Formats: sequence, C-alpha cells, structure tokens
Amino acid sequence: MNKSELILQIKNKRSFLCIGLDSDIEKIPHFLLDYEDPIFEFNKRIIDSTKDYCVAYKPNIAFYESMGAKGLASLQKTVDYIPQDIFTIADAKRGDIGNTSKMYAKAFFNNMNFDAVTIAPYMGKDSVSPFLDYSEKWAIILALTSNEGSLDFQNIKDIHGKEFFKHVLSSAQNWGSDQNTMFVIGATQAQKMLEVRKIVPNHFLLVPGVGAQGGNLQKIAKYGMNADCGLLVNSSRGIIYASSEKDFAEKAALEAQKLQREMADLLLSI
Amino acid sequence: MNKSELILQIKNKRSFLCIGLDSDIEKIPHFLLDYEDPIFEFNKRIIDSTKDYCVAYKPNIAFYESMGAKGLASLQKTVDYIPQDIFTIADAKRGDIGNTSKMYAKAFFNNMNFDAVTIAPYMGKDSVSPFLDYSEKWAIILALTSNEGSLDFQNIKDIHGKEFFKHVLSSAQNWGSDQNTMFVIGATQAQKMLEVRKIVPNHFLLVPGVGAQGGNLQKIAKYGMNADCGLLVNSSRGIIYASSEKDFAEKAALEAQKLQREMADLLLSI
Repeated sequence: MNKSELILQIKNKRSFLCIGLDSDIEKIPHFLLDYEDPIFEFNKRIIDSTKDYCVAYKPNIAFYESMGAKGLASLQKTVDYIPQDIFTIADAKRGDIGNTSKMYAKAFFNNMNFDAVTIAPYMGKDSVSPFLDYSEKWAIILALTSNEGSLDFQNIKDIHGKEFFKHVLSSAQNWGSDQNTMFVIGATQAQKMLEVRKIVPNHFLLVPGVGAQGGNLQKIAKYGMNADCGLLVNSSRGIIYASSEKDFAEKAALEAQKLQREMADLLLSI
Repeated sequence: MNKSELILQIKNKRSFLCIGLDSDIEKIPHFLLDYEDPIFEFNKRIIDSTKDYCVAYKPNIAFYESMGAKGLASLQKTVDYIPQDIFTIADAKRGDIGNTSKMYAKAFFNNMNFDAVTIAPYMGKDSVSPFLDYSEKWAIILALTSNEGSLDFQNIKDIHGKEFFKHVLSSAQNWGSDQNTMFVIGATQAQKMLEVRKIVPNHFLLVPGVGAQGGNLQKIAKYGMNADCGLLVNSSRGIIYASSEKDFAEKAALEAQKLQREMADLLLSI
C-alpha cells in the first residue's frame, strides 16, 4: 500500500487506529479452544467486528512464533483474511546484516504479503536497506519506544546534547523517504513528539502504548499530527481482550469504535 | 548449557569455533534439491563433517523464516540433530517489550531448545530480561557488530566521550551475569576488544565476521581472549559454502579444521 492510499483510508474512515493482534492462546476466550485453529478464529472475529474502525492491523509476530509451525499457519491465514484495503504491519522488530535482512524482507513482504515490518535500528543502514527495496512496502524503524527500557539507551545524549533516538531519526530518514519509512514513537512519549516532528515533519509515526501502557490520544494528536494525519496509533490488549467471554468481538468493536470516534474529532483539525 | 560445560568443551576440543548455519536454498549444492528436505540434508552433512572442530552451531533464523513452515521444520530438525554437548545459538536478533520478548524466549528456549538467542538491545532492560529467566540459557546481546552500518550509531559518543556500544556493555552486564549473558563484538572491530575487556573482563564474546567479512583470528585472540578463552568466533559462509559440489561437506570440514588448528595454537597461551 502506498502513502496516498493510506491517507485516503484515514480520511474515509475518519480513523488512524491500528489494532495489534497480540493473540495469545492463554488469553483468548476458552470456548475458542474447541476450534481447529483457535488463534485464527479469534483474529477472524476481531477483524470482522473492528475492520470499519481501524486502518491497520499489526500482528505481533512473537505470539505466532511461540506456537511454531501452527502459529505461522494462523498468522498467514490472518494476513490473508485482512481486507486488501487495510494496512498490515508485521510487528517483528527485525534487523541484521544486509544479506540476512534481505531474507527477513523476503519472509514478510514476498511470502506473507505484509505491507510493513517493524525494524530495530541498532545495526545501522545496511540492516534496514533491504526492506526499502520493495515497491509500496514499508520499513517502520524503532526510534523512541513506549516501554520502561526505552530510558536505558534511547535518551543518551551526545556531546551536543542530541539524544540517541534523534540520531536514528535524522540518519534513517535519509535511507528511504516518507513514502516507504515510518518511525515508532511510543504513546507514553507524547511530550517528545514536537521534537520528533522538527526532524521528520512528513513521515508517518507508528504510536504504540495507548491503552494497557497508558498513552494519551489527545496529547499524541496535539503534538504528533501533521497535515496528512501522519499517525497510526496502536492499541492491542485494550481492544482484543476487552472481554474474555463469548461477547469478546462485540466488546472489541465497542472499544475500537470509542477510539475511532475520538480520532474522528481529532481529524477535524486537518 | 552452563558456562563450565562450555569451557570444558573448548578445552577438550581445543577450539572456540562457532559455525553459522546460514543455509540458503539458492546456495547449497544443486544435487541436494532432490532430497525431501534439502536444507536439513545440507545441515546434517555439515554437522557430521565439522562437529569435531567446533563448539557451537549458530543457525541464522532469517534463512529458515524466509522458507515459511517448511523452513521452521528444517530448523527444528537441525537443532535436534546437533549433538547435545555442542552449544546452539539462535541467531535471531530479537528484542521487544517484556510480554513480547517472553514469547520469543518461549519460542527459542522452550519449544526449539536452543541454548542461546542473539538480542538487539535498543529497547533496553525489559526487552532482554525475559531471556535471562531460564536456567542454563543465554542472552547474547549485540554490542559492536561487524557490518558497515555498525558505524551509523554504535560509535556515537556521549558527553564524556563514551561510545554508545559501551553504554550497552556497562548497563547490560548488570541485567544478568557472565553465566547467562554474552556480547556480540564483530571480528572487524578487533582493535576495540581491549576496551571491551576493560568493561566485561569475564563475559564470553560472540565474534562474527571472520572469513567472508574479513576479520582476523590472531588479533581477536590477542585482544579479546581471557583466562576462560571467553570467545566464540563464528564463521558461516567461509565454511559451509567452501564448495558447491558433491564434496561440500569434506571441504567444509577442511576449512573448519584449519580454523580449529589455528585456535588450538592460540589456546596454548591460556
């Protein structure tokens, strides 16, 4: 999916919601365990009930990998089931030397047909470039994450007072363009978004951490939104585990709708 | 495998060689394509012919992931085939927020039974800790890598002149201990090893980049070896693709033996 198509979808749906499919066999409603592929059955119902409220789905690859070949099958069925006009992100945090990243790009773009992959930038340009060689596919590079450990390294300042995550933003924006690169900025870091926007005014930002991790949607929009919207705000557990009963899909839809309505209001300003 | 067992193996075999199984369907000898599982057949023969010369095998997970469920099956068969007393490393470069890293740890330690996983440290402590919760399993954390892109971020200096990779070493050594944590230091960075050893004198270092990437074994040993040896030096392509003919396993054995003999000499000093 290219940038114009993504923006069009955001405008049509009045939403910049991404739903994280962190689908965990130990957390999905028990009655689903009677199905042949409980994880796919769960995802299918979540997608059916929420697809009008979101513009992207983000399967968290670890949850599928932890189930071996069966998990990979659930993942592929899920990606295939997501409607063509919705953006798909493999939340995989990959990144390795060039010839290896090339293999990861092949796995997620060629084989599984994801639109985007999240990437850890520690190994630099040649670890990211292979993901930028695909037309209408995206590299989503970690910059400032939403977890406690983000404080360990990402805010270390260089001799000029420039934080490490800003080095990632200023270097990595030149590896591709705002047509094939996004950055991860955690929702818990909303106050930093103004500074982020000074470096990458036009890039889309993938913003995890709303919901279970405590990020605030109003602040994210206030400091992070640009003329294209420029945001994909992710919620995972707050939506998909809104209920652990038979009504989980309806409850997920209600949570997604609540966020979508808030987003529709925030989109009035652009 | 615990540290004493690894050291014992190094002393018995007079080797600190790790062989990288970057097994690529497009690079293995053509005649293997007639087998039901060509990648496993390739790995099996490489293992049979090299197991006396190395102390560790390191499958590069991207190469298996790029082949989908079939690749995962080849990978599992490979790990199961590696003799119990040889150290196994999933070269996966994983790392995510705590609840997600926990799933990756489950995938590689519980399900696949690897001894160790390589981890990207960008997201900090909670992205690594779940890998340290397993007894006799190892987190191998990227510090200074062997690729060109290592120059992009890893050498950025803070206000006191301390490079970023040294922040990773000095922080991450306290997350676990030298009994469950190693660090990746690229072979092309041998001159930095003295500085590395000032920070982590007792940890094992995984050193990729010998062979195809041009690292020098004598220098690595001179600057990086400690009283336990403290090194696992990896070669992948230089060994497994030494020949693309029927004699590939014999040629791989010769290359592995050549490195092992050089290592045996270097081990005389400890």
